[in-house]
Amino acid sequence: MTKAKTAAKGKSGKTIPVDDSTTSDDIAVATVRTVDMETAKTRTEHDLLGYDEVPAKALWGIHTKRAVTNFPITGVPVGHFPEFVQALALVKQAAARANKRLGYLDAAKADAIDRACTLVATEKSYAEAFVVDAIQGGAGTSTNMNTNEVIANVALGLMGHAPGTYGKLHPNDDVNMAQSTNDAYPTALRLAVIIATQPLTRALDDLAYAFKGKAVEFADVLKMGRTQLQDAVPMTLGQEFDGFHATIKEDVGRLTETSALFREVNLGATAIGTGINADPRYAALAVEELSRVSGQPMVLAGNLIEATSDLGAFVLFSGVLKRVAVKLSKICNDLRLLSSGPRTGFGEIRLPAVQAGSSIMPGKVNPVIPEVVNQVAYMVIGQDLTVTLCAEGGQLQLNAFEPTIGYCVLSSIRMLTAAIETLTKRCVEGIEADRERCRALVQGSIGLVTALAPTLGYEASSRIAQRALKENRSVAELVLEEGLLTEAQLNQLLELEAMTHPTRRQKKGTV
Amino acid sequence: MTKAKTAAKGKSGKTIPVDDSTTSDDIAVATVRTVDMETAKTRTEHDLLGYDEVPAKALWGIHTKRAVTNFPITGVPVGHFPEFVQALALVKQAAARANKRLGYLDAAKADAIDRACTLVATEKSYAEAFVVDAIQGGAGTSTNMNTNEVIANVALGLMGHAPGTYGKLHPNDDVNMAQSTNDAYPTALRLAVIIATQPLTRALDDLAYAFKGKAVEFADVLKMGRTQLQDAVPMTLGQEFDGFHATIKEDVGRLTETSALFREVNLGATAIGTGINADPRYAALAVEELSRVSGQPMVLAGNLIEATSDLGAFVLFSGVLKRVAVKLSKICNDLRLLSSGPRTGFGEIRLPAVQAGSSIMPGKVNPVIPEVVNQVAYMVIGQDLTVTLCAEGGQLQLNAFEPTIGYCVLSSIRMLTAAIETLTKRCVEGIEADRERCRALVQGSIGLVTALAPTLGYEASSRIAQRALKENRSVAELVLEEGLLTEAQLNQLLELEAMTHPTRRQKKGTV
Amino acid sequence: MTKAKTAAKGKSGKTIPVDDSTTSDDIAVATVRTVDMETAKTRTEHDLLGYDEVPAKALWGIHTKRAVTNFPITGVPVGHFPEFVQALALVKQAAARANKRLGYLDAAKADAIDRACTLVATEKSYAEAFVVDAIQGGAGTSTNMNTNEVIANVALGLMGHAPGTYGKLHPNDDVNMAQSTNDAYPTALRLAVIIATQPLTRALDDLAYAFKGKAVEFADVLKMGRTQLQDAVPMTLGQEFDGFHATIKEDVGRLTETSALFREVNLGATAIGTGINADPRYAALAVEELSRVSGQPMVLAGNLIEATSDLGAFVLFSGVLKRVAVKLSKICNDLRLLSSGPRTGFGEIRLPAVQAGSSIMPGKVNPVIPEVVNQVAYMVIGQDLTVTLCAEGGQLQLNAFEPTIGYCVLSSIRMLTAAIETLTKRCVEGIEADRERCRALVQGSIGLVTALAPTLGYEASSRIAQRALKENRSVAELVLEEGLLTEAQLNQLLELEAMTHPTRRQKKGTV
Amino acid sequence: MTKAKTAAKGKSGKTIPVDDSTTSDDIAVATVRTVDMETAKTRTEHDLLGYDEVPAKALWGIHTKRAVTNFPITGVPVGHFPEFVQALALVKQAAARANKRLGYLDAAKADAIDRACTLVATEKSYAEAFVVDAIQGGAGTSTNMNTNEVIANVALGLMGHAPGTYGKLHPNDDVNMAQSTNDAYPTALRLAVIIATQPLTRALDDLAYAFKGKAVEFADVLKMGRTQLQDAVPMTLGQEFDGFHATIKEDVGRLTETSALFREVNLGATAIGTGINADPRYAALAVEELSRVSGQPMVLAGNLIEATSDLGAFVLFSGVLKRVAVKLSKICNDLRLLSSGPRTGFGEIRLPAVQAGSSIMPGKVNPVIPEVVNQVAYMVIGQDLTVTLCAEGGQLQLNAFEPTIGYCVLSSIRMLTAAIETLTKRCVEGIEADRERCRALVQGSIGLVTALAPTLGYEASSRIAQRALKENRSVAELVLEEGLLTEAQLNQLLELEAMTHPTRRQKKGTV
Repeated sequence: MTKAKTAAKGKSGKTIPVDDSTTSDDIAVATVRTVDMETAKTRTEHDLLGYDEVPAKALWGIHTKRAVTNFPITGVPVGHFPEFVQALALVKQAAARANKRLGYLDAAKADAIDRACTLVATEKSYAEAFVVDAIQGGAGTSTNMNTNEVIANVALGLMGHAPGTYGKLHPNDDVNMAQSTNDAYPTALRLAVIIATQPLTRALDDLAYAFKGKAVEFADVLKMGRTQLQDAVPMTLGQEFDGFHATIKEDVGRLTETSALFREVNLGATAIGTGINADPRYAALAVEELSRVSGQPMVLAGNLIEATSDLGAFVLFSGVLKRVAVKLSKICNDLRLLSSGPRTGFGEIRLPAVQAGSSIMPGKVNPVIPEVVNQVAYMVIGQDLTVTLCAEGGQLQLNAFEPTIGYCVLSSIRMLTAAIETLTKRCVEGIEADRERCRALVQGSIGLVTALAPTLGYEASSRIAQRALKENRSVAELVLEEGLLTEAQLNQLLELEAMTHPTRRQKKGTV
Repeated sequence: MTKAKTAAKGKSGKTIPVDDSTTSDDIAVATVRTVDMETAKTRTEHDLLGYDEVPAKALWGIHTKRAVTNFPITGVPVGHFPEFVQALALVKQAAARANKRLGYLDAAKADAIDRACTLVATEKSYAEAFVVDAIQGGAGTSTNMNTNEVIANVALGLMGHAPGTYGKLHPNDDVNMAQSTNDAYPTALRLAVIIATQPLTRALDDLAYAFKGKAVEFADVLKMGRTQLQDAVPMTLGQEFDGFHATIKEDVGRLTETSALFREVNLGATAIGTGINADPRYAALAVEELSRVSGQPMVLAGNLIEATSDLGAFVLFSGVLKRVAVKLSKICNDLRLLSSGPRTGFGEIRLPAVQAGSSIMPGKVNPVIPEVVNQVAYMVIGQDLTVTLCAEGGQLQLNAFEPTIGYCVLSSIRMLTAAIETLTKRCVEGIEADRERCRALVQGSIGLVTALAPTLGYEASSRIAQRALKENRSVAELVLEEGLLTEAQLNQLLELEAMTHPTRRQKKGTV
Repeated sequence: MTKAKTAAKGKSGKTIPVDDSTTSDDIAVATVRTVDMETAKTRTEHDLLGYDEVPAKALWGIHTKRAVTNFPITGVPVGHFPEFVQALALVKQAAARANKRLGYLDAAKADAIDRACTLVATEKSYAEAFVVDAIQGGAGTSTNMNTNEVIANVALGLMGHAPGTYGKLHPNDDVNMAQSTNDAYPTALRLAVIIATQPLTRALDDLAYAFKGKAVEFADVLKMGRTQLQDAVPMTLGQEFDGFHATIKEDVGRLTETSALFREVNLGATAIGTGINADPRYAALAVEELSRVSGQPMVLAGNLIEATSDLGAFVLFSGVLKRVAVKLSKICNDLRLLSSGPRTGFGEIRLPAVQAGSSIMPGKVNPVIPEVVNQVAYMVIGQDLTVTLCAEGGQLQLNAFEPTIGYCVLSSIRMLTAAIETLTKRCVEGIEADRERCRALVQGSIGLVTALAPTLGYEASSRIAQRALKENRSVAELVLEEGLLTEAQLNQLLELEAMTHPTRRQKKGTV
Repeated sequence: MTKAKTAAKGKSGKTIPVDDSTTSDDIAVATVRTVDMETAKTRTEHDLLGYDEVPAKALWGIHTKRAVTNFPITGVPVGHFPEFVQALALVKQAAARANKRLGYLDAAKADAIDRACTLVATEKSYAEAFVVDAIQGGAGTSTNMNTNEVIANVALGLMGHAPGTYGKLHPNDDVNMAQSTNDAYPTALRLAVIIATQPLTRALDDLAYAFKGKAVEFADVLKMGRTQLQDAVPMTLGQEFDGFHATIKEDVGRLTETSALFREVNLGATAIGTGINADPRYAALAVEELSRVSGQPMVLAGNLIEATSDLGAFVLFSGVLKRVAVKLSKICNDLRLLSSGPRTGFGEIRLPAVQAGSSIMPGKVNPVIPEVVNQVAYMVIGQDLTVTLCAEGGQLQLNAFEPTIGYCVLSSIRMLTAAIETLTKRCVEGIEADRERCRALVQGSIGLVTALAPTLGYEASSRIAQRALKENRSVAELVLEEGLLTEAQLNQLLELEAMTHPTRRQKKGTV
């Protein structure tokens, strides 16, 4: 593993003995690489502002370099989001095919672009060439330019030319033909969200499945239900987990439904939606080709002016992500409550231990997986706000803040997917019930009195409840002591499992 | 108008000459009335905590009084939301009918309750008896109790009995029969949202209609489109307003769609969703009756445990309200920009003057209607956050923060409806275009060069653009001066209206 | 009580038997009064838009009427905030005094205005004349106009003239002399916040005091501390409540500190901060007079241009309110957790019962006071977001959204004050500890092992902990059984009270 | 540059010609490295859950590996925040020194730890060993464990031992001695914020300085002020930029002030603030040592129980970051408005061009730097919400969500610092005024009439304003035509520069 060890040599020349070998599963570790621009070969490119050097073999060019210099914001590049890179390449491919069909782009160029797009869309390693910061000014122009340059240089390579020989194939004139950032960029972002949502939906469905498994497993575990954290009435632990199943399952549908809003794109709108400089036939063809290359049904928006500046679909979709986050957070709060203890809390369930809990308290195990899900939920809620702010900030014919909307939506999807997967596999699947404790809590509970209320009346029941609390005795004991019911009657009413379903047994008139 | 004048007598005994007469349209003015508990007759009621006095003729009773004392929070009572009062009464009515059909409630009581519910649901004046603060602890118990007491006392009145004679008809045992706050309250809130959304949807549709009218009126007004606030390419003002129409119209559908989520209710779930103490046939009957009395199709939730604690529908619906707010805010920002001036701004449109703009600057007229819409949008976004926080705060079998969710959603609907109506009638319908200025701006603009780019090439076009800017001259002038095009060619390319649609006229190969 | 009964007659003519008498404490109930403009006498006023009628005796005039018609948004009028009405009157008074000293306003007018301002600032009943909606377009112009009109008409009355005879004393030329909405309105709002913050600070201090009382009362109640909801190590309940005391007490200081930012005002800035049309001596004099009449030290901002458009002080202050809200919410969450039960939860403390908890579950008492505090916290957090959005929306020389900022900040203060007072009096002061349960939970806890870890070592301690959990036995039992410590040693280490303070007794080397 | 090229070989084995050489400034590019665990040497470690392999030379150990596996959330590791790594090492160093002084840690171990901490705190390359995800469950335990392991292994290396030979020096027993995650982690985070805030404060001060430079440069550029986007009254462009200076400068102070809250730490609180297992002298000594090694004055919190669970300082500090963000966003909105055009907007200033603006519109230059600052502001506002949510989520003796608070605050600081620096250097410093256009807009403006109002009266002025607007003529022209003023009088009143300061020249009585 000479490679990794050498790579780890910092500027100080000091060799740090890093993780260069292992026998088990891989670990993904993010890091920041500084491209040392001091040495070696460059090529010269030029733009509206003049001339500048870029690394001789770089797949990106001068526009990208300007953007990297202008926007050193987060350290998270566009390439951090593989689905976005894929979608950008697919949009360029669709445009090239449409331009070829219309006769504007000659076959040689079109085919080189086409093959380059396939490579970029499918080989993960190209993501490293998408180096502009995910958060950038210019409404996505820099990402679009970065894409144009990468596709052009990959295509040039396929044609046997050196990077930067744009006379042979031009990032703007050829790769970006008939496009504006203002239609190509949002179209790609929408497609990226559709692609990225699929594993999220799967993860959510798997979580629902895991909850259903537990619902079945715990179907006979009687426990106290609680409202407002106060003892209420009995239910089964299976019912509780089935509630989790139901609420999550619902959102599998909701996500799919809402992500379909992104199928409507403005490709062909060009600068502001009027389609200036585009062939009237172009938009329809380009969208058709996009559907074909992506395997996703896409349609052209009905009103391209509106579609170019409106980001309502992102607001709504982000709202659905927020809803998923809120539900997950509520469930994780419940899991943490139900597993609180082991001795001084609720203690009805046990979460699997996945790491040591404390550096000072021996034997302590914490609900770390639900905790990380809570935090992801809070990140998603915060990012939903950022999406809202960006969407509201659109002005006239464009929204300049779409890059940050993209960043937030894609990173929320990524975090949610990861969080849900870890929740399913490292927590839910391993949950165990403490059946004895659950049952003991029910039997000691005052909430049982509710089941007697239809028979004893609200007032007598209230009195029994207060006495039980004050004298620290059980409801059953007092009811018998006061002779309100015979033991047989009592047992019938308190047939515990029966309390968990609607079963008003009284005849008319006893109410 | 002795009435109003007398009523305005404050504690100081000082008579203030208030608005007691007028000749034109009514004005609604909110105020706070202090019920002076020092004098006159009371009746005694009791609850779990003991005995207390309430005003002898009050429709509400001791539970309500406890709540008013415990929650002096906003000064905005539940009665502030008439749709909620209506929905609460309808739920009680449906429950009474179901209980009667099942034989648990005798006909005399059931009929009195039924008639009382009709009165409360239809006579606006009863809203004044819903005095508990809209923001309250207890998961809505106080609102439910307030409702039970009001319905009971109205029913007692109809039966010829005095208020508070609960031996004849009891707020809890009879009016609240087979219900828990935990099912009756959320059901009523959901129904209230459905009812309140209807005028909102209509208002939104009227706004879309008004924008369409302007789109037609301005169809021939050529103007510059702007992206990132920089001159882009030409469009018509009609296209711009048609974009507003399209984006608003879309949400008419979205609102209707999402409010349908509220049709699913948990009536019959009782305390936690297990239906404890309810007849197994009750839930279905009660929901059927609710549909009948409300005229709204309602269905029973599939999983009552989940339905009792989950507030996901509110999160999603509030997200849609937020989306509407974001769109309105963006449009109002645009209206304010486009009407900026009159001399030193964009000045493309004129908004109707609806009030004097300044106490110091003579003749100044401000865009006050769009400004208030912006602020309503910001309120809605803030309240969406509160909804999110409340929803996330649910624990185990219940969400105790539903009252605040109700407050936020209902007040957001109310503010949006009012804001949209005032925007339509007091602003959009009266907007005028400054056609001359719009056209002059296009002709002087450098953005025209984009239309020449396919013919002249990107580089030559860039040069012309920069020269025009530097020398403060027009694009057309320079193109002719440089002999790049003949006047005929130029005119053809700059046929202004043609620039606003896709019309790439070049033959293949000229690209 | 003919008055109230008559007033309750709705449009339907139906008399509802409302709360017209009582023997005990007053109840404040908000309601909406519709000013019936169909009948009786009016007077005619005119503005830039033309002529219109207002009720003959109304203290407000045509500008107010326009605003009421334009902004039917929330139903909450400016008069809902008495501190704001007071501050508006004080600003007008200060301006009148400064104008008189400078010789611009003659003595008769100045004195009438002065006396009118005193009346409006001190007699609560005048708040009813501030009828414009709290949320309005126009950057506060309508509120300023409403104020000018009310002060003018009250002054006219004092001079013996009829309302509306503005030839004798003019709302704009006299009452608003040397002012713009853009300086008078923000100055009044800032003063209002200062005034309103005082009871909030007092309420917070009282809450801290109540927590300290409990800290002393519970100083000897040993209990388990919990981290991440898992049993950690012992502490006293007194320590826990002393933590509440400390965190709240800190914010008493923070609030006072931050509200001092509002002492800096832009009175005299006029339209945009350049002081156009104001005498150069005016600003300093007016601020001096404002300090005098309000009894609050106020200073003139250093940069009036900046001070006119910047709302940073509101953002920061609202952030401090949010911090208070977050702390209160965390504390209330803890109170709800600690009092969960009574049988199946933590059950360490008991909150006082302030109302019946359930309409279906007899004897259930819920933590309704902490719950309402949580909800107020969520409202405050939501309103902080609205403040942020409004502040960000300022453009160039003004922020048009200041009315909504005012609404949010003032209503957050109001809700927080009410919530804190109810928390102190109806909850904290009555909290009781369940000493036996607290001690029993400690003794059964595995967390005790942490106290042994320095002696036994981390590994042995972990093993004991795991065995205790698996075998459902106590830590002490196992330590003795394994012969790791003698009973005397064990007792010394587990001297429970000693565990709650740093007391590493080991000699060097035993670590 | 064999190194980089080889490193870029993806799994596909395909070599991509990446940026391996250049002649100019460096570019930082983030990337994700997958540690291939399939091959080569490992060592075995164990924890409470059992045994596992880690790479033989890894500086981190089994606890870190568990966490990396449990939390694959964002792909952003703790090492992404160099100030945090530095602070963690400094805390460990301070603890080791305190433990040595108290005689609990022998000199050899203490010195090795001490030297290791110095290395980690000062050599940037060690940040790569902090591989746990920044967002993690467990209240920071994983970060603390990661730190303990790295310090231990570096120290072992310095002592001549192999990584993982914890018998010689133990991550928990030695490096973590007398600490809990619950005091060490928050203390480090607070210190990190203090360290990271310094460059932010400098950047903000530089921005204020740049605005002041422009204020001086533009002191004589007369322009129209605008309120509510409508022409108001004249001012100078210098006054406008001086307002930007003032508002930013204010926050330099505010930031410093608020970050001082973090000087209060809970080091020595151990698990929950009771100081269990710590020597009573330890806390004071450790904090003293921390001040010494960090060069930052730190103090021990007064109430350690409170300090361990309360995150109020983060809420407040994040609120101040939000305030900075709001101010920056407002300023950038203004810069974008003022530079709108070049032909159809306000066009008062020109921003420097830093990259090409459009892939379709030749010559278009966009305000990309202000745009990215707006987006950073929206990110900061969103992250402030996440901080709030996390802070509110604390329960009982700890807040488990501190890692996400740390992530948000540190990344907001980082983004703000970068955004402010790019705004200063790449935008503000290069702003130019269009003096002619500014003056022309003033002269054509109707707002001039305000300067005449004190002389002509409000009514006559309003009439002139309306006539000017309707007839499209200038105010001056009409005043002369109507004979309201002589040309000399008019010129005196309209002495333009004089209009920008308070200068009411009239004698008493002319008002």
